[in-house]
Amino acid sequence: MSDPCNFCKIASGKAQANVVYEDDYVVAFMDLHPANIGHTLVVPRKHWETIYEVPEKALADLFAVVKRVSVAVKKAVDAEGISILQFNERAAGQSVRHFHVHVIPRFRGDTISKFIGTMLGPIGFKKAEKMDLDEIAKKIKENL
Amino acid sequence: MSDPCNFCKIASGKAQANVVYEDDYVVAFMDLHPANIGHTLVVPRKHWETIYEVPEKALADLFAVVKRVSVAVKKAVDAEGISILQFNERAAGQSVRHFHVHVIPRFRGDTISKFIGTMLGPIGFKKAEKMDLDEIAKKIKENL
Repeated sequence: MSDPCNFCKIASGKAQANVVYEDDYVVAFMDLHPANIGHTLVVPRKHWETIYEVPEKALADLFAVVKRVSVAVKKAVDAEGISILQFNERAAGQSVRHFHVHVIPRFRGDTISKFIGTMLGPIGFKKAEKMDLDEIAKKIKENL
Repeated sequence: MSDPCNFCKIASGKAQANVVYEDDYVVAFMDLHPANIGHTLVVPRKHWETIYEVPEKALADLFAVVKRVSVAVKKAVDAEGISILQFNERAAGQSVRHFHVHVIPRFRGDTISKFIGTMLGPIGFKKAEKMDLDEIAKKIKENL
């Protein structure tokens, strides 16, 4: 590639990163712009852009590491919780076009609690109409 | 249990939900308070509270479905992206204490783009000091 992917470079050792874990398939390293200190990214070594393309086996390998990293980050920074975020395409918040999972240690009242956390559920969004949910559920089923 | 878990009730068919997918291990259904229309929850049938406790095999089964649901939701609502969120413990934004993954269709400039999406990376958070990252990486490695 003439414009190599930053996360591919980290995975191949061509770019520096604070790697906390690596195996044949997965690399985990510190996010340079942490939402909270301890914010870690978990990526497959192989380049896929979004979850739409990642094979099931690679997802299994990756989320086994996400689990281990979540437990380790929680202990390392004595976090009160862990938020796991994964964005696909620019409209969803994806910046680097190499599939990656954010593991973010959380604390009550932290800076990002105003962004996420309280936004989902009864507090953040109003209840949907039953009819709307029936209709959309039907459409999703047709595409599964 | 004297106070049964809502998602266990959905998984066992004792509570109503708009189920879009189910197999022996996993159930996917519409979130009653959608961040965007099409917002789907994917849960294991078995009760675990957080990712810290979910076995690797169950995570593999679950994220295989998360992938399929992501593709189906994207098609069903013609979304421009998919945000996947998973919260562990109250401080991280977890409301229902049954492990669950949010699959949220996204659109440029949608209501939730002010909460998530733009918050991560260079725009939302400032770059961490190299020394800080070295130190925290060391602590995480010690806990892995």
